[in-house]
Amino acid sequence: MGLDEAKMRPDDALREALTADMEAVNAVIRTRMASEHAPRIPEVTAHLVEAGGKRLRPLLTLAAARICGYGGRHHVDLAATVEFIHTATLLHDDVVDESARRRGRPTANLLWDNKSSVLVGDYLFARAFQLMVGTGSLPVLAILSDAAAKIAEGEVLQLTAARNLATTEDIYLQVVRGKTATLFAAACEAGGLIAGAPAEQVEGLRVYGDALGIAFQMADDWLDYGGAGDGIGKNLGDDFRERKLTLPVIRAVAAADAAERAFWARVIEAGEQRDGDLAEALAILKRHGALEATRQQAFTWAERARSALDPLPDHPLRDILRDLAEFVVSRKV
Amino acid sequence: MGLDEAKMRPDDALREALTADMEAVNAVIRTRMASEHAPRIPEVTAHLVEAGGKRLRPLLTLAAARICGYGGRHHVDLAATVEFIHTATLLHDDVVDESARRRGRPTANLLWDNKSSVLVGDYLFARAFQLMVGTGSLPVLAILSDAAAKIAEGEVLQLTAARNLATTEDIYLQVVRGKTATLFAAACEAGGLIAGAPAEQVEGLRVYGDALGIAFQMADDWLDYGGAGDGIGKNLGDDFRERKLTLPVIRAVAAADAAERAFWARVIEAGEQRDGDLAEALAILKRHGALEATRQQAFTWAERARSALDPLPDHPLRDILRDLAEFVVSRKV
Repeated sequence: MGLDEAKMRPDDALREALTADMEAVNAVIRTRMASEHAPRIPEVTAHLVEAGGKRLRPLLTLAAARICGYGGRHHVDLAATVEFIHTATLLHDDVVDESARRRGRPTANLLWDNKSSVLVGDYLFARAFQLMVGTGSLPVLAILSDAAAKIAEGEVLQLTAARNLATTEDIYLQVVRGKTATLFAAACEAGGLIAGAPAEQVEGLRVYGDALGIAFQMADDWLDYGGAGDGIGKNLGDDFRERKLTLPVIRAVAAADAAERAFWARVIEAGEQRDGDLAEALAILKRHGALEATRQQAFTWAERARSALDPLPDHPLRDILRDLAEFVVSRKV
Repeated sequence: MGLDEAKMRPDDALREALTADMEAVNAVIRTRMASEHAPRIPEVTAHLVEAGGKRLRPLLTLAAARICGYGGRHHVDLAATVEFIHTATLLHDDVVDESARRRGRPTANLLWDNKSSVLVGDYLFARAFQLMVGTGSLPVLAILSDAAAKIAEGEVLQLTAARNLATTEDIYLQVVRGKTATLFAAACEAGGLIAGAPAEQVEGLRVYGDALGIAFQMADDWLDYGGAGDGIGKNLGDDFRERKLTLPVIRAVAAADAAERAFWARVIEAGEQRDGDLAEALAILKRHGALEATRQQAFTWAERARSALDPLPDHPLRDILRDLAEFVVSRKV
């Protein structure tokens, strides 16, 4: 790679290196999203699928397949599958979140959208399974259906863990895997499997995706409390206001004295937040080194992701994936 | 079969003839429903899966496989798959229906249940796909993933067709297939496929399930307006009060004069229902012979189901399936 590419964000570098493949993925997404009988389906999905999200998951599948020397077409279908599963998950998350935002009093219009979100999400899940069945690869089908089950399980677990001070780091990790890391891992692993890569390389790809997802989420947790910028983060305190048990809070709760515990119980469990509480939370987090520890853990997972690629063939895309792991924990927003 | 069995309801006869297989199915359902990490999952599914519904869909899969001489174990996993898909659909329907029943003002508790319903439904879908992947049969995977897509598509179509007087018999049929017939058809077809039955028999099973589901739904439509009992049905008028475009209404609307059209527009589209409207609706339906025509169509579909089994091997279970087709259109409730 030349100097220019080296300066590019690694996700953009990935997108540029895989332009032709991603165009094929987008074509598959548009075709499979269509419904002859139910025009509402593309209406609902269009703003999600067409709006040009980062498409990081399909890029991972494509990159994994290419690094392992794949020359067929199935990696495109698998990349579209992964994006459909992701989009279906977003649609179903919307149902949950939108209702909550309206404080338990959704409008008829919102309910109508809820119906559509649930059912169109189901449609995308089914389309995802059709697409992967079309590849004829049973190992890939096993990986992706296992991933779908783990994602759903993690989301249910999150319901019971939400706003619960008893949440441990172990539960946190399971929830993060359900939210992010499992689909990252499956996206990478499926790319290696479809390429017929040796088991050691497929496992390396799985570990890379898993560790990348965890590193990404931990960096998010850290940034939400201001990161290194001491309060200049764009979404500073969003997690706090939403009473999320993110890693910094879990660590601070574990080390809390009686007064701090009462504070967390009030602001997180009871949700009674007053002016100055965010500043107080930040002070407690810093006192226990919880933000710095979260950042360190994010770096450790990023390093795990990077070294997981060691068994993979030497390839420019492998270098970009390594840069990506570093990037997700070094970003400022 | 002896005289006693002949008097038995055919669904009960099916259950009795397949007792051992159904016990194996129930064991698979219990095992796969469990979640190590998220105890809420079995809590939510228990009342649906364990409450002992009719289990008609898994019985169809088991019967189809047995009629075609299957001696393996995969028909049990496929039967459980079909029940999981059905249960997931019910869970997602609940989200839609419960919200509506509370007139757009669900309680926090109801919202919590909604979250659980959406996510646990997703978990069951994923478990269904895992189970069928375990059978290693790509043709079966194709059938069931196609069915899942058609079901979701039909449900979305139903959203736009609901309370819309422009609903045609063609749209009605698509909606009915999405709600009922597609999964019946896939349940039967999967049983034949896993048994390695000839294409003609597999197709016969598919047509049987499709026609059975349609006959069942049309009989339901007819019974809801009192059937032959002229108003003694248990749920008399439920569809009317819920403003459903069922087949009798669609036929009456197609034949309506201006005054009748205004009536249907008021009670179905606008939802302004007054005392005496149900009696008026019944009078209009009878004037146009819409109830009798619906019943006749139900009988035609039941007959189609019966004759679709002609290519199947002679088998006591085939006789029961034929009786079942007659039963679903002859029942009084």
